[in-house]
Amino acid sequence: MNEKMIKTAIMGFGTVGSGVYEIIRDKSFAGETGDEIEVKYILDIRDFDDDEIKPMLTKNFEDILNDDEVNIAAEVMGGLHPAYEFTKQLLEKGKSVVTSNKELVATYGRELLETAQKNNALYMFEASVGGGIPVIRPMTVCTKANNITAIAGILNGTTNYILNEMFKKGKDFNDALADAQAKGYAEKNPAADIEGHDACRKLAILSSMAWGKVVNYNDIPTSGITDISLRDVAYVEKLSSVIKLIGYAMMNDEGKVYASVSPMIVPGENILSDVNGVFNAVMIRGNYLGDLVFYGKGAGKLPTASAVVADILDCSRHIGAKKHNIIWEETDEKIIADANEQTMTFLVRCRDNAQNIEKVFGDIEFVPVYDDETAFLVKDIKRGRLNAGLEKINGVIHALGVLDIR
Amino acid sequence: MNEKMIKTAIMGFGTVGSGVYEIIRDKSFAGETGDEIEVKYILDIRDFDDDEIKPMLTKNFEDILNDDEVNIAAEVMGGLHPAYEFTKQLLEKGKSVVTSNKELVATYGRELLETAQKNNALYMFEASVGGGIPVIRPMTVCTKANNITAIAGILNGTTNYILNEMFKKGKDFNDALADAQAKGYAEKNPAADIEGHDACRKLAILSSMAWGKVVNYNDIPTSGITDISLRDVAYVEKLSSVIKLIGYAMMNDEGKVYASVSPMIVPGENILSDVNGVFNAVMIRGNYLGDLVFYGKGAGKLPTASAVVADILDCSRHIGAKKHNIIWEETDEKIIADANEQTMTFLVRCRDNAQNIEKVFGDIEFVPVYDDETAFLVKDIKRGRLNAGLEKINGVIHALGVLDIR
Repeated sequence: MNEKMIKTAIMGFGTVGSGVYEIIRDKSFAGETGDEIEVKYILDIRDFDDDEIKPMLTKNFEDILNDDEVNIAAEVMGGLHPAYEFTKQLLEKGKSVVTSNKELVATYGRELLETAQKNNALYMFEASVGGGIPVIRPMTVCTKANNITAIAGILNGTTNYILNEMFKKGKDFNDALADAQAKGYAEKNPAADIEGHDACRKLAILSSMAWGKVVNYNDIPTSGITDISLRDVAYVEKLSSVIKLIGYAMMNDEGKVYASVSPMIVPGENILSDVNGVFNAVMIRGNYLGDLVFYGKGAGKLPTASAVVADILDCSRHIGAKKHNIIWEETDEKIIADANEQTMTFLVRCRDNAQNIEKVFGDIEFVPVYDDETAFLVKDIKRGRLNAGLEKINGVIHALGVLDIR
Repeated sequence: MNEKMIKTAIMGFGTVGSGVYEIIRDKSFAGETGDEIEVKYILDIRDFDDDEIKPMLTKNFEDILNDDEVNIAAEVMGGLHPAYEFTKQLLEKGKSVVTSNKELVATYGRELLETAQKNNALYMFEASVGGGIPVIRPMTVCTKANNITAIAGILNGTTNYILNEMFKKGKDFNDALADAQAKGYAEKNPAADIEGHDACRKLAILSSMAWGKVVNYNDIPTSGITDISLRDVAYVEKLSSVIKLIGYAMMNDEGKVYASVSPMIVPGENILSDVNGVFNAVMIRGNYLGDLVFYGKGAGKLPTASAVVADILDCSRHIGAKKHNIIWEETDEKIIADANEQTMTFLVRCRDNAQNIEKVFGDIEFVPVYDDETAFLVKDIKRGRLNAGLEKINGVIHALGVLDIR
């Protein structure tokens, strides 16, 4: 084996970046890939008073860009800019880039993959979805021998923790959120998590992977968990189910994709109902494989960093092997199908009377729990028809879909 | 992209082999790898009266070995011989081989991987563990950036189906087995499954992957599920747990591995308790990643065949890239630790009285269900000490360990 020293740069010395540094420092890779990995640069605009990393620190991106010894960089700075510009310039110089930056991959993934391809470099982003869970890589492989028909994932650990506390400990949403913040699972400004935007970007990446076409995250209807209450918990427990924030995508018969991020009712017999705490899980359905589930820690310094390091190692084995890249086509036709056409079962909560509800929806199943409101299940109805019906119902609180991938 | 035609041979036209043929015939791969795949030979000693495959059929292995156009062969014939000899000769000629043959990988894996490495070829075996579930490939990647500390897997669908029927439908072992046979989930001679040998070979492969050293399956203490009765089900349900046939391996502080295949009590809060029917799941614990679980169909024609095809595609991208190979070292020191030293919690069933049991084991917890026998939990005891204690107890029925990976 030709052992060589791979010199890398870490761009952004935050939580993930410092984790990447620690793993590379503490673990010897020579036995497994034949290549030693060394961190030559750490790029950050901040000052760090740490003698160990001082020799590597730079505030000047050009140091990395213009150093011919550096073949691989880890972009773990987050945000769109300057992450996009840095990544683009590195790839144009034929340097490979690995990243945990889901926002960048979801927004500029196609362009950056194309740039990588053109310049014989790699752009890899295992850490951008599911933290440390290997999902991008196995999905790349699965999609080769399978046609993916559906994806359903618990893609955000913060919201899963909050929902879990509501179900397991009877906390209301605000208490559960405060608890998540106290434990460091939720940020001070939790909007990106609790409103579903984080999960939406990850679903866009998975869908683009699955079908090889750009899925724009702005096209995915997204709702968060902020209006889930302990009353919802009581209804859903009566159905032997739980509520999970589900990123969902399914290809329909016309080759378009029903996609959404929303709190859904997950029946107890579905393995996703057992994904607790801050864990994530992604279910993929392939035409030959059936259902696969990947489960693990979806966030956190070292799990995410270890996925970044795995990508660095993979790059080091494939320098110049452009065949290894994923390709997403740009397409003019919208790949996202009209959500109104999707058939699903819904639990509806409202303040109307049974007679009026039955007049609108016909044969439904009531779920009696509280005296001051009415809840019912409407089975196998198109979302468009449901919404039209709800307009004729008084005091609609909300409707939750039931996860049942067929 | 340089598109080229990859010509392959399928050796063995049984269930998996015919699945591999169908997937390659029905799916176009050109868009994803740039390579078209074509089946040039199908090797089988049997005659097939099928016009479609006739042009490819051969009974002569030399046809494949001596055809310079064939770079990749799928060995899906099963058994040790002549699968070993064929694989070895192909690798020596620099042809890559992919396989679903767990027996061959568990027995000759190290030697065949070394032969591949020496001859710039690849030997891949994703389909040998977990059928269609991608576990070998993600494990290869995980192990690079992590030290694996433990593996626990439901590695055999037949036994999982039987245990599931016993728990969910109250069938006794023989009825559940007969049902599995009627449904085609168990073979007429089910010994390899129900006595744990199939799971043992898969655990040996996973352990060799995890720690890079040959784990000989003969060194793994293995017991099957034939003596699990509905009485065990009743006790274990009282503990809010289930029984699963678990392939278990954990590295101890001295760098040795506790490994076993046995029916274990899996607490309801462990996600493995929710793996039902013929599904498989593998849990891997990494020092950075924490717990990962891969879940899916562990057997079946098309799931397994799609894993074989994925390996063929991976080979086609890496022809000549020997760095892609896995290496298992041969080691003189035994890597398997003395099972008697492992600390675990056990449920014991016997026909002795409480007083005598407490005299032997001290502080224990009784699990009262039946009048004509006594069951109790002994917590955190070394297996050697448990066994010594059981010799002093009358009428021991059996002891089941509790899965609790720490």
